Amino acid sequence: MSGKIAYLSLLRLTEEILLAGYGYNEAEAKITARLLTEADARGIPSHGVSRLAFYRANLDQGHCRPGRMPEIVWQTPVSLVVDARGGVGCFAADWCVQRTIELALKSGAGHCAVRNSNHYGIAGYWAELMAQKDLIGLAFTNTYIAGVPTFGIRRILGTNPVAAAIPEANGKIFMLDMATTTVSHGKVELYDRRRKPMPTGWVVDETGQEAYDATSFEKTFYQTFLGGHLYIGGAGEESGGHKGFGLGLLIELLCSGLSLGASSLATYPAGGPGGITHFFSAMRMDLFGNPERLKAHIGSILETIRRSEKAAGRDRIYIHGEKEAEARQKALAEGVFLDKTTQEYLAGLAGKFGLKKLEEI
Amino acid sequence: MSGKIAYLSLLRLTEEILLAGYGYNEAEAKITARLLTEADARGIPSHGVSRLAFYRANLDQGHCRPGRMPEIVWQTPVSLVVDARGGVGCFAADWCVQRTIELALKSGAGHCAVRNSNHYGIAGYWAELMAQKDLIGLAFTNTYIAGVPTFGIRRILGTNPVAAAIPEANGKIFMLDMATTTVSHGKVELYDRRRKPMPTGWVVDETGQEAYDATSFEKTFYQTFLGGHLYIGGAGEESGGHKGFGLGLLIELLCSGLSLGASSLATYPAGGPGGITHFFSAMRMDLFGNPERLKAHIGSILETIRRSEKAAGRDRIYIHGEKEAEARQKALAEGVFLDKTTQEYLAGLAGKFGLKKLEEI
Repeated sequence: MSGKIAYLSLLRLTEEILLAGYGYNEAEAKITARLLTEADARGIPSHGVSRLAFYRANLDQGHCRPGRMPEIVWQTPVSLVVDARGGVGCFAADWCVQRTIELALKSGAGHCAVRNSNHYGIAGYWAELMAQKDLIGLAFTNTYIAGVPTFGIRRILGTNPVAAAIPEANGKIFMLDMATTTVSHGKVELYDRRRKPMPTGWVVDETGQEAYDATSFEKTFYQTFLGGHLYIGGAGEESGGHKGFGLGLLIELLCSGLSLGASSLATYPAGGPGGITHFFSAMRMDLFGNPERLKAHIGSILETIRRSEKAAGRDRIYIHGEKEAEARQKALAEGVFLDKTTQEYLAGLAGKFGLKKLEEI
Repeated sequence: MSGKIAYLSLLRLTEEILLAGYGYNEAEAKITARLLTEADARGIPSHGVSRLAFYRANLDQGHCRPGRMPEIVWQTPVSLVVDARGGVGCFAADWCVQRTIELALKSGAGHCAVRNSNHYGIAGYWAELMAQKDLIGLAFTNTYIAGVPTFGIRRILGTNPVAAAIPEANGKIFMLDMATTTVSHGKVELYDRRRKPMPTGWVVDETGQEAYDATSFEKTFYQTFLGGHLYIGGAGEESGGHKGFGLGLLIELLCSGLSLGASSLATYPAGGPGGITHFFSAMRMDLFGNPERLKAHIGSILETIRRSEKAAGRDRIYIHGEKEAEARQKALAEGVFLDKTTQEYLAGLAGKFGLKKLEEI
């Protein structure tokens, strides 16, 4: 009862479920299964295979329409605007990121705004794809509405994550991948299940007051558009909440604004395509010098931080992306951990679509 | 006793002080006076004319060397790396931003990394210059060391501000200009003077514990490199402190990393040039579509937020840049407010260099 599944088995079953039961074509199933499996392998189960339930709901509600090919609607030698036509989010993102990488390799930099897409998995995966080609990679997206503006109460912006990847020395990658809200909604759900009071700076109620009771917050969350997540820095301006809100808004303007796409508020309309928007950007490192010298210099800046004095009771300063990269290495060697609920959920899907169930390692 | 000085009089006296008493040449004095006056006019006195004292110290300690012209050390059709050679920060920034704008207008996008510079005033001014040309503008810089990493205690990164400007409809500009630390050091000094306990999430002491007593924090701040500012999200990971630290670190890698310049830790070495690094980026809006349509769409996203429901006791949701733009309009019409200490300080400098003192409106 290790709870661990071989990476390739998990990848294959996820792919087969999407092919057999979701109406995804092979390319859509392959990349979506990759994103979900990677999230679990990296220790980000909120974006792992348990998301198959959300992807199912997106199909049933007409938000996601497999088989739709993305279409370029605006083009320059350094940029693209793509209409994903309500297709599979991970597939559209891959299609766009590959083209953004091509633009950057050819022209020095490439920028791509995407509209009418769907959930694209972990943002960091896309930024990392660019960094693996020695590019500085940015991947942004808006999401379903989750957060309230500073001094507001209506949920009007998404969790609007930022991912930025910069190649370091020795094949390492600095990889920041963060929601601009203090936490994702999955964290609130966890505190609800555990009946644990939430820390300060997470959410406000429908009057704009900070809320700490996850269970009562969850009850109203799906009944009203008032009250919601705070952005990093928390409520008000005293500890920088307006800064976090500003970052979330910046992501919204780059994704929805530059693609002429839906704002977070207008995503997931009843029966309509999800309307999620993304923004990708890639810059070749040799825009700024010899890539090997730059990576060595970046490595030395990070190394100084890694080695600097630790707070009482702490023995490590983490550089962004390290936890996930180490979890991934471990998962590749020892298997991907899935909790019991997720394993049972997968087993149910496998049974439903006549597929072979997973076995623990 | 209005405390208000005509904008042009303040601009002129500041320019004359820099010319007569600081050894700045005319171009350096003009742009530096502009940056300082603009900060006071926008209601950001921490970066206003009172900074003349800091700029004086930079001269005396050999960090800033007027008359040094920036030099391009790496160049592509879409990028520049500039060595500012220890010159005047505002002058170097202007020199670089003008060239970044030219690159963007010609090639679609322009990117510039700068090393060996000095303090360049408010970051937002530079991003705004780009947005005034219908460009999406980014301006980043590192600073003297101020902040500690998550789980660390050594001050190792600067306040590393982010400025991002995006043109909106009707000539407005979305303008996010924020330190990635929760607050600037000026805020801590203010709480020290007022003997007021600091809110949570601002600073940690030399053991890595959150500190609230500004006076005792200030005492150790200049005696040790341990203890310092937190990044937005505060201490630890529970409320997103690692995210704020990640943003500060991202800025460091873009500025110092890509310019092969000093990291924040290596800035202001005894007797040596300041070593501050910057990063500028500009993208033409027509990379993504018809600029007027994009600006109208961006305006509609922002307008929906402005109009959305307010928290109890609040009557306005501010879009980033609005407070500063409105303060500036008022200052242009009614004069720039300077507190008594700053007025006396300026009067002292005017007297010292044989210049005419300012009179209140």
